[in-house]
Amino acid sequence: MYPADYGLLTPAWAATPVAQTASDAAFAQGMLDVEATWVKVQAEAGLCSSADAQAVEQIAKVELYDLAALASAGPDGANALIPLLGMMRKQLADTGAPATAATALHRGATSQDIIDSALMLVASRSIAGIRTDLLTAAGALSEISAAHASTLCVARSLTQHALPTVFGLRAANWLSSLTAAGRQLDAVAASLPLQWGGAVGTLASLHQRLGSALPYKSEKRLAERAHELTAALAAELGLVAPIAPWHTVRQPVLGLGSALGSVIAAAGTFGADVLTATRPEIGELSEPREAGKGGSSAMPQKQNPVHSVLLRNAALSAPAHVAALYTAAGTAVDERPDGGWHAEWASLRELVRLAGGAAHHAAVLATGLGVHPEAMSRNMALSGDLLVSERIATVAAPLVAGGKAAVQELVLDSLRTGTPLRTLLQGALPSDMDNQLFLDDLLDPAGYLGSATDFITRIREDFTDWKDS
Amino acid sequence: MYPADYGLLTPAWAATPVAQTASDAAFAQGMLDVEATWVKVQAEAGLCSSADAQAVEQIAKVELYDLAALASAGPDGANALIPLLGMMRKQLADTGAPATAATALHRGATSQDIIDSALMLVASRSIAGIRTDLLTAAGALSEISAAHASTLCVARSLTQHALPTVFGLRAANWLSSLTAAGRQLDAVAASLPLQWGGAVGTLASLHQRLGSALPYKSEKRLAERAHELTAALAAELGLVAPIAPWHTVRQPVLGLGSALGSVIAAAGTFGADVLTATRPEIGELSEPREAGKGGSSAMPQKQNPVHSVLLRNAALSAPAHVAALYTAAGTAVDERPDGGWHAEWASLRELVRLAGGAAHHAAVLATGLGVHPEAMSRNMALSGDLLVSERIATVAAPLVAGGKAAVQELVLDSLRTGTPLRTLLQGALPSDMDNQLFLDDLLDPAGYLGSATDFITRIREDFTDWKDS
Amino acid sequence: MYPADYGLLTPAWAATPVAQTASDAAFAQGMLDVEATWVKVQAEAGLCSSADAQAVEQIAKVELYDLAALASAGPDGANALIPLLGMMRKQLADTGAPATAATALHRGATSQDIIDSALMLVASRSIAGIRTDLLTAAGALSEISAAHASTLCVARSLTQHALPTVFGLRAANWLSSLTAAGRQLDAVAASLPLQWGGAVGTLASLHQRLGSALPYKSEKRLAERAHELTAALAAELGLVAPIAPWHTVRQPVLGLGSALGSVIAAAGTFGADVLTATRPEIGELSEPREAGKGGSSAMPQKQNPVHSVLLRNAALSAPAHVAALYTAAGTAVDERPDGGWHAEWASLRELVRLAGGAAHHAAVLATGLGVHPEAMSRNMALSGDLLVSERIATVAAPLVAGGKAAVQELVLDSLRTGTPLRTLLQGALPSDMDNQLFLDDLLDPAGYLGSATDFITRIREDFTDWKDS
Amino acid sequence: MYPADYGLLTPAWAATPVAQTASDAAFAQGMLDVEATWVKVQAEAGLCSSADAQAVEQIAKVELYDLAALASAGPDGANALIPLLGMMRKQLADTGAPATAATALHRGATSQDIIDSALMLVASRSIAGIRTDLLTAAGALSEISAAHASTLCVARSLTQHALPTVFGLRAANWLSSLTAAGRQLDAVAASLPLQWGGAVGTLASLHQRLGSALPYKSEKRLAERAHELTAALAAELGLVAPIAPWHTVRQPVLGLGSALGSVIAAAGTFGADVLTATRPEIGELSEPREAGKGGSSAMPQKQNPVHSVLLRNAALSAPAHVAALYTAAGTAVDERPDGGWHAEWASLRELVRLAGGAAHHAAVLATGLGVHPEAMSRNMALSGDLLVSERIATVAAPLVAGGKAAVQELVLDSLRTGTPLRTLLQGALPSDMDNQLFLDDLLDPAGYLGSATDFITRIREDFTDWKDS
Repeated sequence: MYPADYGLLTPAWAATPVAQTASDAAFAQGMLDVEATWVKVQAEAGLCSSADAQAVEQIAKVELYDLAALASAGPDGANALIPLLGMMRKQLADTGAPATAATALHRGATSQDIIDSALMLVASRSIAGIRTDLLTAAGALSEISAAHASTLCVARSLTQHALPTVFGLRAANWLSSLTAAGRQLDAVAASLPLQWGGAVGTLASLHQRLGSALPYKSEKRLAERAHELTAALAAELGLVAPIAPWHTVRQPVLGLGSALGSVIAAAGTFGADVLTATRPEIGELSEPREAGKGGSSAMPQKQNPVHSVLLRNAALSAPAHVAALYTAAGTAVDERPDGGWHAEWASLRELVRLAGGAAHHAAVLATGLGVHPEAMSRNMALSGDLLVSERIATVAAPLVAGGKAAVQELVLDSLRTGTPLRTLLQGALPSDMDNQLFLDDLLDPAGYLGSATDFITRIREDFTDWKDS
Repeated sequence: MYPADYGLLTPAWAATPVAQTASDAAFAQGMLDVEATWVKVQAEAGLCSSADAQAVEQIAKVELYDLAALASAGPDGANALIPLLGMMRKQLADTGAPATAATALHRGATSQDIIDSALMLVASRSIAGIRTDLLTAAGALSEISAAHASTLCVARSLTQHALPTVFGLRAANWLSSLTAAGRQLDAVAASLPLQWGGAVGTLASLHQRLGSALPYKSEKRLAERAHELTAALAAELGLVAPIAPWHTVRQPVLGLGSALGSVIAAAGTFGADVLTATRPEIGELSEPREAGKGGSSAMPQKQNPVHSVLLRNAALSAPAHVAALYTAAGTAVDERPDGGWHAEWASLRELVRLAGGAAHHAAVLATGLGVHPEAMSRNMALSGDLLVSERIATVAAPLVAGGKAAVQELVLDSLRTGTPLRTLLQGALPSDMDNQLFLDDLLDPAGYLGSATDFITRIREDFTDWKDS
Repeated sequence: MYPADYGLLTPAWAATPVAQTASDAAFAQGMLDVEATWVKVQAEAGLCSSADAQAVEQIAKVELYDLAALASAGPDGANALIPLLGMMRKQLADTGAPATAATALHRGATSQDIIDSALMLVASRSIAGIRTDLLTAAGALSEISAAHASTLCVARSLTQHALPTVFGLRAANWLSSLTAAGRQLDAVAASLPLQWGGAVGTLASLHQRLGSALPYKSEKRLAERAHELTAALAAELGLVAPIAPWHTVRQPVLGLGSALGSVIAAAGTFGADVLTATRPEIGELSEPREAGKGGSSAMPQKQNPVHSVLLRNAALSAPAHVAALYTAAGTAVDERPDGGWHAEWASLRELVRLAGGAAHHAAVLATGLGVHPEAMSRNMALSGDLLVSERIATVAAPLVAGGKAAVQELVLDSLRTGTPLRTLLQGALPSDMDNQLFLDDLLDPAGYLGSATDFITRIREDFTDWKDS
Repeated sequence: MYPADYGLLTPAWAATPVAQTASDAAFAQGMLDVEATWVKVQAEAGLCSSADAQAVEQIAKVELYDLAALASAGPDGANALIPLLGMMRKQLADTGAPATAATALHRGATSQDIIDSALMLVASRSIAGIRTDLLTAAGALSEISAAHASTLCVARSLTQHALPTVFGLRAANWLSSLTAAGRQLDAVAASLPLQWGGAVGTLASLHQRLGSALPYKSEKRLAERAHELTAALAAELGLVAPIAPWHTVRQPVLGLGSALGSVIAAAGTFGADVLTATRPEIGELSEPREAGKGGSSAMPQKQNPVHSVLLRNAALSAPAHVAALYTAAGTAVDERPDGGWHAEWASLRELVRLAGGAAHHAAVLATGLGVHPEAMSRNMALSGDLLVSERIATVAAPLVAGGKAAVQELVLDSLRTGTPLRTLLQGALPSDMDNQLFLDDLLDPAGYLGSATDFITRIREDFTDWKDS
């Protein structure tokens, strides 16, 4: 049996779209795509024949390669491209390709050009799916925040009841996080760069080829031509042409990793709140009940949260991978690094997968989220009038003999004795005012929501802006 | 003696400007500034008197407070603002401020509003200094890359000699990293948000105050007014008004931390290359010799690298702090978090300091960097003609009987026997061509530099763009 | 104002004993102690006079030094020892010490010897206090687990109600974690090594001195003597003599960091459970009410958890520092490292402080923990008979027509309709058995506790073993 | 094509033994082993028939299961055991096993019991191979350190030449690190615990079964019996019986992860030194030349380091995974955690693989390491007599007019002018002593090695102790 990982230990992304788009096969296809596209660009530039390009295209299919054998050969050169190139050349020979195809293959490139570009392709293709899931999640949360713009619930700080709020604002805060992360991911996706520099980032070998084939020889013209070909390759692959090779300039990897980490953190805080809210004692939210999910083999009554657990899993796993990218970037040396680059691969790919898994589970969770206003009411009632004690302290103090200190004493009295605060206030207010109406108004949590509605509106509009961008 | 840290264990930032701008005192001043400015904004809005504002401004000076006592009281409420507020109130009383000043102080705010905003102020003020140092470092590297655009040296990959390059391109790559990181930092600095939400992010208390004082009462108008005051406060402080409070929406912190980490990584790769190049056996670069720096008490001949060691120190220390921010963000809960928020403070501040230290040491190192072209030549000579073997394999192969395989055999022969490759090639080339001239041209490393000059130019232009932005 | 940190941003350890024992002053005193003790050892070995030793001892007091100035000079040599040595020499001169004292000072040592040993001293002295707090916390938890060995409560997995348990077992699990971490810390504390190797870990300079002064000169005898002096120094300082210098062999640092991290994680899981349990909806536990702690300036009714928040803070902050130590260790080079070593200091010290803070807050929390069995009962009642559905499925199935599937159907029926499971079972059981007694027994959560009591006993015994070790 | 990972992005462990022993298949086999062994233990205890045990054993073979399908079902219950159990039951039915086999299968267990225990099995089995590789690496380094106990070379600190040492001591320091890490791994391997607690860590279900079958019913006797069965299961699996379940007591995972991280760091520092030493300008060491390894497709002369690059890769990748384990441990809640536990799996397994890869590459590197004493001599000559300037300052100062300051001046003179220090000293020494012999002795680096030989001996003996333990 192959020593392969199928995702048994990573349910956070297993069976989500990204399991396919960021698999080893997807990465190998990415390398094949870069190599084949480069021959195609050469053919269009007259540096080889279109027959060469077709021959390479024919063999640039991941199905033709034994990935387990490829992985086994990887350590020999400390990367997977070197043995893949050997396998590609063998395929060319086996399929009777012209000898010139093998010459054009990988011409002027170095393994880092192919691997970095292939990872950018994997990221780009995976982000397309991640964006879809993020938009689904965010769209659902936007609906929820609108639908529950007036659903009263308790706001908590440091785990304790603080003041009233509306559930729509809590959902809007999740939305706000997803929107910010989604925007960051969009910006990164639009700037994923091609890597193209040759052995030491000078494109010397490409110049050699261009110089021998073309009627101009000035260094400046050759550099322009080299840049044109680089731009053409980037365009064909859907990547951005960088101003120069970035073999040791790892900011693009940091930007990508940070954006993916941000997506995972945004989904993580959503999951964390759902985990709290699905506790039976709180019960304000429930995960979607789906056939076959969340069951316990031993306890037939038990329905486990699954999506929020996996979001928490991702949120706790991802930061370490972000750190690994920064460590690698900060220790890059020479014209091409000596181990730091290698340390990026697994962490970058895992961030892609965790972000994909997080976006997917966030989408499922948001679209099927059970919201239970009656539980929100019940929980709010636990604090009773005390929930607006901040307001009472401000508003009632001027009316009560003893002022703020006296009001605070009433609050503590209520906490101690259980006597409703309203009763105590009633006794302390001047008798010549309409206490009934005053207290109705003062103690109504719905009257102490500040800008909640406004914030929901702003956050939803911000989401719409992003969605339509 | 106070249990204070002076930076004995963190030479990476000790004695650099950021030691002042991101100290505990700077953070405390930040909190005082936010509180005082809020009273000022209230006064301008007619919510309190200008005498109140002046009274608070008088006592909003960090020199008036015992920071050690403040820190000791911090754990009681799990943050430093709560005891600071008590001390401020005492100062107001002691200075005979009107009672209304104490009422206006902190009105409607929560400790997280003040602490988050103060940290953004600390970041903002520190980044101003960091930017200056980054520009100095980058400017010096831009000069170096221009000055050494034709200085030949060996390009290395995986620590080994690979091909020729110019030292100017290596310096340009450091510049490219700093420019990318600097741009990211600028973007972040321009968007550092004020935190303003009150106890649970609804501004309910502010609404209460506004509603009692102003002739409009519609929720919508109150929300507009609350937003105006928030915007005024942000403007006074030089921060950005957020669309809504971000008590649990930690993307701004992630963006800031990532940008700071990126600066440190960029400086780290510069330091790592300098560390390698100052090894006596390589000797291509040297640190600036400064009086009293880098000496060894025991070994009078020894001159230690200092700035590059501290850059490496920062590069190895920072990633963990970046990770801590992502962990904290992904575990935020409720309307205000239960420990994750608290875990951000030290890591965010340390990233500010490490970035400041890294920028500073990078500036000193870049402006005083000793460049030794003769050592570069000497090292290049170690590989001799083999340095252009890639080119030989391409160009000479068609001319030699046996083609590429024969040329590779010559290369291995040269490696085995030490016979210069030129001699071996001479014997293998057709006798009817001008071998002398051909080989002179073929083996000249200066003729195999590809787009090096072009890349230097592009990277320097990109830096100029940033600098002038 | 000094750019010093007082702990404003780190309430997790501010104002706990470790703030003193691991401060910059404590580290500086550690360096002074190592230097002074080495001169004392030399005097005892006849390598200098006792007057020299006394002169150095006189000036080895941290109060004599300006730590801010020391920190400012730190970056010049990339560590604090080099300027401290200069200051010490000045103190010797100023106090009229014999010139030989300055010669004996630091003789044969390198800055890494002093700094590594001083950090081990700081760790050793801090761990003494940490151990006390850990034992207090563990002792209190042991009492709690005994006192609540029969206090029924709901056991939760994946946040959901699962089966009954006793609160004593939950407390015992916290105890088990603290005991395991405490044992690990003890093992580390007993093996903290002196660092002693001279400039490159050969003790060459010490050999030189010994060779010139003593009547033997064989390399072997000199090495024995050097080892004796090293052992004497270690013994005086309360550290362990290593088999050889460990300038680049950083396993001692990894062992120390891991043990501290383990303490913090153990306290973290205690804090996490308390945070959940103090939520008003759950209410099974409460933090100790202490004067002035946990109050909210705006909301008079609110009592915030403080100790558990700070435990969570520490648990989220510490892992990054552990990682930094591993990164530093794995990148050590040459005879003494080039930045990795420097990156250890701040992280190692912060782990000491976070462990100290965590142990302290765990002790306060455990000794004052409010336990509310009535809330545990109330929460258990939420699940009713369903809490033992695992048992019902096993025991009742053979007695019911349709077996296990039928019983599961009853469970789902109860969930759907709210009909008590007991009623449904009653109807399904054979009518010829004493259903009443059978169901009383079957549905009694106190009868389905398995080895809970046994586990509590074992864990408490294990704690006693540790405490008495 | 399966969305599987073959290791294309992780050459650090691909194609090493641990790729097999820690694969998904190995983990699945671990789960199957735990389940089957438990039924066997039940049969031996008379809780089911031996036919049941045989039936389960028959189907407990990983080849019978579709791992990709298993992984796809994993997210449904947030772990892989739940669907595996369903597949096992189907296999039992398909193979005509007695119905009682299905009843005995997984009886009383929870998914965490199986998964934690399976991970411990994977660790245990992998560590056996890791230990072999570590011993090979350490054995080779021990030989090298003995063989080169007198091979002079320069000792470096902060990248600069410091003093003379012998290469044998550098190798001994690598050995010392590996020995310390190996010992730690042995201690962990000997204490890897079985997880066995049932749904909430009380073994309630097992008690139920025991109580219904056996002639004793006292809680105490049942607990003893449960413990006996747990111990029997642990013994059969080669694991240790814990004093109680550790569902939320994650110290065993932290201990394992730390030990694996320590192995990787130890190998990392070896790799880091080899990377430096194989730089052409230094050339003191070379990687083993193996057919097909380290070649460059474009540059025929180039031989890349491979093993040391992969060691550095592992050293930079591992710390993040260690951190993830501490984060997970410190956030565990309730009786079984809500996402933290899930976050452990991938990181723990990756640490096993990285440690396996590191041990393997260290073994290959150490056994084939090329050592080049002539390069060591050449590099030492770069510093000439200055290499013993520490000694000169001590020994010659008393003989020279002007003392230490005068000698230091000579050193700086030599640095400035290039005049050999010997010549300058010659002129400064009193003319009436045998300067020739004195200087020969003084300047001989072989005479300034301190305890180098002694340290080598001690470290080698320590290794032998470990090897023989």
